[in-house]
Amino acid sequence: MLNITLPDGSVRELPVGSTGYDLAAGISEGLARNALAVRVNGEIRDLHRALPDTATVEILTWRDEGGKSTYWHSSAHLMAEALEALYPGVKLAIGPAIENGFYYDVDLGEGRSISSEDFPAIEKKMLELAKNKSKYERREVPKAEAIAYFTEKADPYKLELLENLEDGNITFYTQGGFTDLCRGPHIPDTGTIKAAKLMNVAGAYWRGDEKNKQLTRLYGITFPKATELAEYLERLEEAKRRDHRKLGKELKLFTFSERVGAGLPLWLPKGTALRERLEQFLRKAQVKAGYLPVVTPHIGAKELYVTSGHYEKYGADSFQPIKTPNPGEEFFLKPMNCPHHCEIYKSEPRSYRDLPVRLAEFGTVYRYEQSGELHGLTRVRGFTQDDAHIFCLPEQVKEEFQKVIDLVLYVFKALGFSDFTAQISLRDPENTTKYIGSDKNWALAEAAITESAAEKGLTTVTELGEAAFYGPKLDFMVRDALGRRWQLGTIQVDYNLPERFELEYVAPDNTKQRPVMIHRAPFGSLERFVAVLIEHCAGNFPLWLTPEQFIILPISDKFIDYAKQVKAQLEAADLRGTVDARDERIGRKIRDAEMSKIPYLLVVGEKEAEAGQVGVRKHGEGDLGAMNVAAFVASVQQQMAEAMAQ
Amino acid sequence: MLNITLPDGSVRELPVGSTGYDLAAGISEGLARNALAVRVNGEIRDLHRALPDTATVEILTWRDEGGKSTYWHSSAHLMAEALEALYPGVKLAIGPAIENGFYYDVDLGEGRSISSEDFPAIEKKMLELAKNKSKYERREVPKAEAIAYFTEKADPYKLELLENLEDGNITFYTQGGFTDLCRGPHIPDTGTIKAAKLMNVAGAYWRGDEKNKQLTRLYGITFPKATELAEYLERLEEAKRRDHRKLGKELKLFTFSERVGAGLPLWLPKGTALRERLEQFLRKAQVKAGYLPVVTPHIGAKELYVTSGHYEKYGADSFQPIKTPNPGEEFFLKPMNCPHHCEIYKSEPRSYRDLPVRLAEFGTVYRYEQSGELHGLTRVRGFTQDDAHIFCLPEQVKEEFQKVIDLVLYVFKALGFSDFTAQISLRDPENTTKYIGSDKNWALAEAAITESAAEKGLTTVTELGEAAFYGPKLDFMVRDALGRRWQLGTIQVDYNLPERFELEYVAPDNTKQRPVMIHRAPFGSLERFVAVLIEHCAGNFPLWLTPEQFIILPISDKFIDYAKQVKAQLEAADLRGTVDARDERIGRKIRDAEMSKIPYLLVVGEKEAEAGQVGVRKHGEGDLGAMNVAAFVASVQQQMAEAMAQ
Repeated sequence: MLNITLPDGSVRELPVGSTGYDLAAGISEGLARNALAVRVNGEIRDLHRALPDTATVEILTWRDEGGKSTYWHSSAHLMAEALEALYPGVKLAIGPAIENGFYYDVDLGEGRSISSEDFPAIEKKMLELAKNKSKYERREVPKAEAIAYFTEKADPYKLELLENLEDGNITFYTQGGFTDLCRGPHIPDTGTIKAAKLMNVAGAYWRGDEKNKQLTRLYGITFPKATELAEYLERLEEAKRRDHRKLGKELKLFTFSERVGAGLPLWLPKGTALRERLEQFLRKAQVKAGYLPVVTPHIGAKELYVTSGHYEKYGADSFQPIKTPNPGEEFFLKPMNCPHHCEIYKSEPRSYRDLPVRLAEFGTVYRYEQSGELHGLTRVRGFTQDDAHIFCLPEQVKEEFQKVIDLVLYVFKALGFSDFTAQISLRDPENTTKYIGSDKNWALAEAAITESAAEKGLTTVTELGEAAFYGPKLDFMVRDALGRRWQLGTIQVDYNLPERFELEYVAPDNTKQRPVMIHRAPFGSLERFVAVLIEHCAGNFPLWLTPEQFIILPISDKFIDYAKQVKAQLEAADLRGTVDARDERIGRKIRDAEMSKIPYLLVVGEKEAEAGQVGVRKHGEGDLGAMNVAAFVASVQQQMAEAMAQ
Repeated sequence: MLNITLPDGSVRELPVGSTGYDLAAGISEGLARNALAVRVNGEIRDLHRALPDTATVEILTWRDEGGKSTYWHSSAHLMAEALEALYPGVKLAIGPAIENGFYYDVDLGEGRSISSEDFPAIEKKMLELAKNKSKYERREVPKAEAIAYFTEKADPYKLELLENLEDGNITFYTQGGFTDLCRGPHIPDTGTIKAAKLMNVAGAYWRGDEKNKQLTRLYGITFPKATELAEYLERLEEAKRRDHRKLGKELKLFTFSERVGAGLPLWLPKGTALRERLEQFLRKAQVKAGYLPVVTPHIGAKELYVTSGHYEKYGADSFQPIKTPNPGEEFFLKPMNCPHHCEIYKSEPRSYRDLPVRLAEFGTVYRYEQSGELHGLTRVRGFTQDDAHIFCLPEQVKEEFQKVIDLVLYVFKALGFSDFTAQISLRDPENTTKYIGSDKNWALAEAAITESAAEKGLTTVTELGEAAFYGPKLDFMVRDALGRRWQLGTIQVDYNLPERFELEYVAPDNTKQRPVMIHRAPFGSLERFVAVLIEHCAGNFPLWLTPEQFIILPISDKFIDYAKQVKAQLEAADLRGTVDARDERIGRKIRDAEMSKIPYLLVVGEKEAEAGQVGVRKHGEGDLGAMNVAAFVASVQQQMAEAMAQ
């Protein structure tokens, strides 16, 4: 009998020769119907392959990442089959699954090309073939046979791939009339592929080398239901509408300049106001939580990074050192703030009574990225971390961790992120020697993190072996309004820098001890956070944060004076906004204001001026009727107070 | 007759052969008595030399910089005479006047040295010689005679100096028994030297070259009255007590670290709080004045500085470029913010209706200074400018200038700088070709600056030819509590960068025109301003700015709870401070608090706790008696409101 452990820890016995499908069927009929593949001892395999004697097995469906990627890999084969039917003689290179769908690099042959106009025919052929419910059949083949097969097909790409494979290690997958050199795994058959869409066509050099021939890369995606494809396409459209690069430009938040350099954002006045408000919000919460703001320079001498250990990691892919007239003197753009903060900690003697010391800085750091990697505000070469370093006693780690979690939750709530999980990264219990710090301190810190997360009610995933060599950590993964996941806040324990910088405090017994250091950044970086926030709220920022909270729209010139009076009243109550005094019709003014995503449109005409009122329109909600100015102020202030309540 | 124009423009005729002394005597007896030298057509000369036929002449006394430097130069000769008397055979190198006093580099001869213990004897000898009222007599000598004289004295230094002088161009000055090779000028006689003090002795290489022999440099200072020397020494002591490097450390405002690098300040929590408060203060005033805060990176690509023209000025004495993995790509640490702001201006089309655009940034910039030049926060390698650039129409320059002057005056008043002058730097009317920009615009801007300064009632000095090549400027020179002058705020018109960056606005006639740019920084830099402020107020910062406004001193443990209550009340009113809960006697607590320069010490004991009061002691003023907490809050808030009233 086979001895199979399921993810929930339960054990099942099955007859020798049983497959993943048999296992699924033994659990439930529905699971067997939906099963796409199995993960056996961590490795994904075909559902219908025999299971080993003893194994931990997970049944993968469309809901699992591993299920999806197998499904899309199989869909790439289906697309290849369709291409062979429509473009006889097409040569195939490689066709993997990617984050959303799959691609296949193909050589169409002299004089043939594919454009988006050809996509519908290919999609149609794919679905036609899928209806055959062709099985994906795996076969191990001797190398000679494999070479003979692709020699006959005259496919130079597969032959080149074969060159690097050893005999006895080669598998073919066949579905319908199509056979591919492929390691697999694949889904059982093509019947579950119910919707297909080709997304894009691009050029791609064989093996990514521009000295090789340029192939045609066809991107596609498939789904088990037509409605899922429709939803996916709608989400894509929505993501385009919400693209922070597009909205950042429309809302005049930031810009880039080639002269200043790629990946170096210039924050425009409205973006700066928003950014400063975010900083101010966090600064206030941090000061309340006992953090001490500091300011440090954006460069550091070589000696600083020799001490921190970063120097030896600076490579040819980094910003190079800044030399000076003084031979041998070198400075570096700072890639992080911690070494500077260690020097501040070291600037005076510390006693256990002074700890924790929490040094905070909105510190701008610089890291080189290849220009191809740059993307709006999410991948930049200069960014501002909402950084802080907590220097504490080992026994204070848990309390400090909890306080940081509270702060992160406060930030997420005030910014409208309600869907997130926490990934806890611990050390590999099988291989503790590669980590710095005593076992006792690791045990303390890992328990502190795990318990803190549990006590704070976080949804967590724990990854063994994912800790940094210098300490365990907790990362917050946020799901945005489009369901995309972003890693934002982070909290990391560090036993390394206190050692390297020889940080000390005087313990109650008068001995000198090392403090523990905690790195933390609730936003992660202001740039990345603002980018995610823009896309999450589609530019409709929380009321307390948005650059302009109101715009007053006088119906005609006659009411500009009254509009200005109202503006002064609102500004006296610390609200921000403007008067649209243009000589335009009110309908146009309302449309323009809606485009600018200003939360409150205050229309003023004769009736409002006489009654001391404003006609309130809320963005996205429409007309709320006339309101006294004082009542409007009170309502707005209450909304903000609720959003920012700690 | 001679035709002499006085500084006030009046003209006097004097007989041929008349001297500066005759001119002074003709004005007043007192002036003749106090005259030390004359400035003839810009050149300082001996008072008793005959005046030329036609000249502009200024009589110099001890009150004039030129009078002082002549006096100190003559005092160096007096010291040399004393040294020859006390150290027979001493060889003399050079002996100039300096900012405060003078020095002489001397070669005492094998086996002889001077220490501070020898100073009194030298001072005594100087005053003894001075009493002789020896005249400083000028004599032109042939080179051969001069060489013969110093060959006889066996003085190798004077002989080396003589080598480089041309015959017919050599003068000797003699007073008493001492003759020196000297271009002059000198004061009439030694009789006005009534107080002398040797300040320091140091080593100095002949001609500043370390391959040459090391000489003994003796620093001294002299005064016409003994009381002036006493005051000078007292000011020196006070300056030491107020040294911002010393107070910065004591008050825990900032620190430096060798690992981070010399000249790169680390702002400690208390200093950061102070700095942030300064920024917040100015930010608020600027936003009120229509400035738009922006944020730009600390580096810029080579192309940015090629455009701005700075690239060609980067030399071996600067921070060197930052290379990247991308061949040919170079970034620079930004030495100023204007090029980045020009790119922001350029990021959207501008109409004359949008101007002025005022972009403000607390921008941290980096400039290399030799380590020997570094000094606390006044000479650093990285500093934050309270920078802004106003882009306006040529006809808006005057109004903008006036607004900036208002802002600078507001800043100076709130920070307690009441003694300042404004230096207006205009272009050289004789040589207008070396300046960029049209004559019309220069005329507009120079008139705008001069009229603005006059209308705002500033005390001004106008310097022709001191304008930058790109535009005229106005600099604020502040005199601190010790009478020292500092250049702080600056306002500069710029016609160059708008041209180089091809900045434009659409004029009413739909043509494209260049805006004028105004650079301005009321503080200059935060680092330098804080340094000057620390020394000006001796660390007793204005109440609104100081890191801690109060400290509550419970008389014993019993009153710690009440102290905490009071603290909460004060914090609710936005006041900052702490409770000294140490187990120390009240006298000790008061002494420590006074040392920390905290403005208000609030003593609480039984009587205060019962009555809801605090016993108020004001720093430097002593006991103000008991006060209700609310009354204390009201009084403090009123003081701050007055200090910051605009």
